[in-house]
Amino acid sequence: MRVTRQELLDTFEGILARRGMAEARACAALFADATRDGVATHGVNRFPVFVGQIDQGDVQVNARPVLVQAMGAFERWDGQFGPGNLNAARCMDRAIELARGAGIGAVALRNTNHWMRGGAYGLQAAAADCIGICWTNALAAMPAWGGRDGRLGTNPLIMALPGAPPVLVDMAMSQFSYGKLQEYRLKGQRLPVAGGYDADGALTDDPAAVEATRRILPAGYWKGSALSMALDMVAAALSGGNTVADLSGKYPRETGVSQVFIAFAMDRLGREWEATVARVREDVRGSAPAQPGAAVRIPGERAAALRAAADRDGITVDDRIWAKVGEL
Amino acid sequence: MRVTRQELLDTFEGILARRGMAEARACAALFADATRDGVATHGVNRFPVFVGQIDQGDVQVNARPVLVQAMGAFERWDGQFGPGNLNAARCMDRAIELARGAGIGAVALRNTNHWMRGGAYGLQAAAADCIGICWTNALAAMPAWGGRDGRLGTNPLIMALPGAPPVLVDMAMSQFSYGKLQEYRLKGQRLPVAGGYDADGALTDDPAAVEATRRILPAGYWKGSALSMALDMVAAALSGGNTVADLSGKYPRETGVSQVFIAFAMDRLGREWEATVARVREDVRGSAPAQPGAAVRIPGERAAALRAAADRDGITVDDRIWAKVGEL
Repeated sequence: MRVTRQELLDTFEGILARRGMAEARACAALFADATRDGVATHGVNRFPVFVGQIDQGDVQVNARPVLVQAMGAFERWDGQFGPGNLNAARCMDRAIELARGAGIGAVALRNTNHWMRGGAYGLQAAAADCIGICWTNALAAMPAWGGRDGRLGTNPLIMALPGAPPVLVDMAMSQFSYGKLQEYRLKGQRLPVAGGYDADGALTDDPAAVEATRRILPAGYWKGSALSMALDMVAAALSGGNTVADLSGKYPRETGVSQVFIAFAMDRLGREWEATVARVREDVRGSAPAQPGAAVRIPGERAAALRAAADRDGITVDDRIWAKVGEL
Repeated sequence: MRVTRQELLDTFEGILARRGMAEARACAALFADATRDGVATHGVNRFPVFVGQIDQGDVQVNARPVLVQAMGAFERWDGQFGPGNLNAARCMDRAIELARGAGIGAVALRNTNHWMRGGAYGLQAAAADCIGICWTNALAAMPAWGGRDGRLGTNPLIMALPGAPPVLVDMAMSQFSYGKLQEYRLKGQRLPVAGGYDADGALTDDPAAVEATRRILPAGYWKGSALSMALDMVAAALSGGNTVADLSGKYPRETGVSQVFIAFAMDRLGREWEATVARVREDVRGSAPAQPGAAVRIPGERAAALRAAADRDGITVDDRIWAKVGEL
């Protein structure tokens, strides 16, 4: 069925307010906006899981991050197991504030919850005229390159620049998420490229075979594997929080993750950089197509187009998911 | 043939000193150390190209970076087309210095030259008890995902943490470098995974076919493509310098690149983070092997092992390359 952003917002807000969340509207808006931008997996589809984690006590609805240590342009915060998206938005805000003073600002956050759509905090920085870089660790879900069992998080890395639309890279360290595998399987499609290993240990583009082994492939094989490890190490070391292995062993469900937020204040640098960014866009867009009709995408433009379409035509929501939300 | 680090160092130093470089020893040491750590492609093998760029006037042997703008914890510098490795080392040093004061420090550098082995500046940060993150843009050499002609730089991203040995991720945004393709071809081997497109536009693991089309594959397909674009945009926007497209059009050879250096001062955070990083290492090392005998690598450990072997047994250098160096 189709809904408007307003309907999503009001529905989510009501459900969260009934659970005593003081900032229900801000939290609901992040779920609504992810859905509107085509990231339903971290929007409406994930909302019932999030509410479940409130009801199970993983997410403390009114907890707010507390400052642990301030060093000038870099601060350590503790998320107190509050709502992951509100905690992340608050910490990116703080990184932006620090960047206004020192050119760059950074916050490392521990003991927080899943931030849902990581791209939201990149876009938040871009809307504040900042370059935003952030990443999170997560439950172990991906084998390291050379390994068989899931020891790495998909640990998404986000990089965003101001623009119209903003440039937004929001990439998990796996080639495909489990949500994407499911999506391809339900449509009866093969993956466009190999996404993991089948039961015989061979690389395969069959989504069901990869779901069965849970041996998803790191993006770039050894490269995504190495970068996932390093992102985990840096997030946990800087925040003083849990590593992927720590949090995967400690809690029954994903909670207590570690994150890093970095902002550069672009208003300190004149406005010449806007033309610089535009030149990269234009040059890449001018690529000769790999096949007739193939288009080169500038990261962030697809989400912006989906948002515009959603504002015009409404947002398509899975009927079963929407029914589930109605029961919360 | 085999040489010692000392022989490499003395040879390189003499050649650079004859060209009037005041800091010949520091520059030579970076070339010698890259070779010793198994990165001959950016060590001895690259040295004749570097000297050629001095002789052609691309590299100004005694130019030093000048401060353009200071904002507290983030500074803009101009590399004045000095030696790329010395410029990079100086800027990482400055980022470390800024981090000692503010917890985090960053330098964006424009108008510099190829930094050779990017990992060197990560290791430099790690040796100074800092987390180091840096990246560079480069000549257009890789098609964007969906495109056919080379519009992206391989734009390596480096992330390093202190440790024994330090953790070091040093990853180009392409799945393989042209140097690696050549290496496989000369050995008569196929690539371990697809590395680009053949003349028919099909993905292939034949290194010669990819060298012929110059359609190397971004690591993680659309992911490496997007991240390469963003790294270029951020480096050029923060430094006020050239984008990949700018520098690919402006100069006959690669020069005038843009780079970013970020450091976090770990001595401000107690020492608990050392155990945190060690836990990630140990957990990943405990992976069940994908095949019997397969090992999971912790990034940085291979370079450290090669270094130890080189210190013990000497450094193997290609005879033809070494003869070429002798003529410089």
